[in-house]
Amino acid sequence: MRVIDIIRKKRDCEELTREEIAFLVDGYTRNEIPDYQISAWLMAVWLRGMTRTELTALTETMLYSGDVLDWSSLPGKKVDKHSTGGVGDKTSLVLAPIVAAAGLFVPMISGRGLGHSGGTLDKLESIPGFNVNLSLADFRRVLRECGLALIGQTAEIAPADKKMYSLRDVTSTVDSPNLICASIMSKKLAEGISALVLDVKTGSGAFMKKQEDAVHLAELMVETGQRMGKKVVALITDMDQPLGQTAGHSLEVIESIEVLNGRGPQDLRTLCIELSAWMLFLGERTTSVDEGKSLAAEMITSGLAKDKFREVIRLQGGDPSVVDQPAKLPRAKSTFEVKSPANGYISAIQCENLGIACNVLGGGRERKEDTIDHAVGLSFHKKIGDNVAKHEPLATIHYNVETRLAEAKELVQGSYRIAAEPPCEQSKLVKRVIGASQVVAGSDER
Amino acid sequence: MRVIDIIRKKRDCEELTREEIAFLVDGYTRNEIPDYQISAWLMAVWLRGMTRTELTALTETMLYSGDVLDWSSLPGKKVDKHSTGGVGDKTSLVLAPIVAAAGLFVPMISGRGLGHSGGTLDKLESIPGFNVNLSLADFRRVLRECGLALIGQTAEIAPADKKMYSLRDVTSTVDSPNLICASIMSKKLAEGISALVLDVKTGSGAFMKKQEDAVHLAELMVETGQRMGKKVVALITDMDQPLGQTAGHSLEVIESIEVLNGRGPQDLRTLCIELSAWMLFLGERTTSVDEGKSLAAEMITSGLAKDKFREVIRLQGGDPSVVDQPAKLPRAKSTFEVKSPANGYISAIQCENLGIACNVLGGGRERKEDTIDHAVGLSFHKKIGDNVAKHEPLATIHYNVETRLAEAKELVQGSYRIAAEPPCEQSKLVKRVIGASQVVAGSDER
Repeated sequence: MRVIDIIRKKRDCEELTREEIAFLVDGYTRNEIPDYQISAWLMAVWLRGMTRTELTALTETMLYSGDVLDWSSLPGKKVDKHSTGGVGDKTSLVLAPIVAAAGLFVPMISGRGLGHSGGTLDKLESIPGFNVNLSLADFRRVLRECGLALIGQTAEIAPADKKMYSLRDVTSTVDSPNLICASIMSKKLAEGISALVLDVKTGSGAFMKKQEDAVHLAELMVETGQRMGKKVVALITDMDQPLGQTAGHSLEVIESIEVLNGRGPQDLRTLCIELSAWMLFLGERTTSVDEGKSLAAEMITSGLAKDKFREVIRLQGGDPSVVDQPAKLPRAKSTFEVKSPANGYISAIQCENLGIACNVLGGGRERKEDTIDHAVGLSFHKKIGDNVAKHEPLATIHYNVETRLAEAKELVQGSYRIAAEPPCEQSKLVKRVIGASQVVAGSDER
Repeated sequence: MRVIDIIRKKRDCEELTREEIAFLVDGYTRNEIPDYQISAWLMAVWLRGMTRTELTALTETMLYSGDVLDWSSLPGKKVDKHSTGGVGDKTSLVLAPIVAAAGLFVPMISGRGLGHSGGTLDKLESIPGFNVNLSLADFRRVLRECGLALIGQTAEIAPADKKMYSLRDVTSTVDSPNLICASIMSKKLAEGISALVLDVKTGSGAFMKKQEDAVHLAELMVETGQRMGKKVVALITDMDQPLGQTAGHSLEVIESIEVLNGRGPQDLRTLCIELSAWMLFLGERTTSVDEGKSLAAEMITSGLAKDKFREVIRLQGGDPSVVDQPAKLPRAKSTFEVKSPANGYISAIQCENLGIACNVLGGGRERKEDTIDHAVGLSFHKKIGDNVAKHEPLATIHYNVETRLAEAKELVQGSYRIAAEPPCEQSKLVKRVIGASQVVAGSDER
């Protein structure tokens, strides 16, 4: 088998065999195939696409390029959720405690902020002492003890993806649905879970701006997961505006605690319950999604989810008292209110720019090694469709460094469209669920 | 300017600017841009193509990545010919002496055998002592002295092409018309010539099997050359069967001497005269191609072309007496005759396999560092359309190593199709001339 023949086949739209794909992925992981051959192949994949059979083979060989966690000693289903990323998306902090409190295991391996979107790991690190860099042994211990654990990717998990992602990043081959699917699914399924709920964001603050692109990616991931014998569904959810009322690490932790207290903004609460419900259903804790919703709500009302959150913080070295005294979390020194320039209705929000504004304030990294400011961020006072009076606050900027305010201000001000009439259509929070029928149809057999 | 943005633009079918292309080519030549980024870009070019403006910019920046020879001290036009390669294609050995004898300069930088096709340098090296590895200073001296010089590519000539060609070779990005055009034209125009005749082969023994592909490549090269202010035409010529009656290094030198002696096979003689005539016309030695043909024929009849060949051999360290005593050239120890299995007419020849048979006998390289056997090869006794009797010889195999005969025999035997009736259409030797009208139209201005 020769690498150039495999590149040529993909270039010429011929289907690659599982053996050919494994030859590439394994050879690359072992440093036997040079970057320049893989990058030519990645570009051919970007431009030519992949069949579903090829994609499954790619995902599987990337998955098995490293350790696949084995939780057979833990009694109970292991489930997880993955989001494609957006602004103010803090659902993991809420739903992982909910689902663990309801009796399933959530071995969650998360990422850091990427581009304009925040990362679960960065948010967790705003809790004093919280350690996301657990060894696999500690990950195992925490999961066994409290039913959830929240860590970052380790060297043992899907090393092929780690190597390939770095190469895609410098060769303009990141945004291929096939390569994104293989990257996400290989990492997530290496968690050793039996079910996965995908939250695929679409809109002005998502990576997939167009709903059709989000649906396409969702279909790829659902089908790939299902071909690999996993229960997978994808919710296509709105990211035309921030989720909830905050963006920024400690601000989002505070808001998550609000939801665990039975309060917090409605859109965030609804989505956390919805995603939790799907996890509970796919993890066979409930016999329907509706039952899952009731159970999730109950975990909040009873305070059990909040207890779980306190517990995982303690087990991962953090200060659990922040759950009851959120004021202990880092707060920015100064605030600035961005006000409405006119009377009217919020007709649209350029949501990606709000995420960029958080980065500008110091909440994001320019380079991998940069440190970030956990206290800065934005709170949002208006949603799309809301009525607003001239000079009424649209958003509050939480900042520490005066010199960074001007640029952030400009970005936030420019992100809101005010119209005389309210928008005729209210966009739905959960637009579609992909893969539900297969999961329901297949549930007897599993 | 960032490399990933340039890759992305090409990937997304946006036109690159001259500055962007120069940034890539220059950065790569200086080892500042890594292979893996260039290979992703090459694959994007392979799949997306290039506009004519982009192609001209690529060719020009590759051309100026190294030395461009300056012959302004030599009084007279400098012209050259380039062939895309085939089986038995020895025209350079004949036409370079003809054109130099007629008073133009031919600073010819040639290549070695590639795949199934032979290379001018390998053929010349079958002449005892002939040195193709001249320094640029010696190249200059020989050209000044006798009007032609025949060498291989040096490190100073188009280094960007040398680096990029090695990368294309291992990333399945060789056979892109745009990349082939830039590679050929950058090297050829670095010779400092004002006119170039391209011999673009098509048929079973050519790299471009289909005439439409040959025409497309020819049009790219002609337009690129003309955009760069050079006189360029391309002849689309037949390679559905070997050119002349031999393939193999010393066998082809002998056949070339035959043509310089006014003998030799008609197809080879005709093509040499035709190509020489175009060189003489574009080099403004004659006012028409027809006049060029007469002048070329005269150079043969008068013996002046043969004198030129003797002279260049002597100046490049070879034994000039081979021109008058071709028996001094290496000859294979044994021969084997491949005979016709039936009565009938030759209806088709799988010409590429005849080239491969020469390699199998030891006439080609598997790796760059391999030495080759200059004596082995094939002589052909029948052309397409010829009548043949059962057991009549089709071809003679000239071989030195007994163990290599069987495979070569099988390849040669399998290459001839014998039919009961002669083929209805005789394929033309010169099928089309591309770029002639522009050259004639533009000739007043130059």
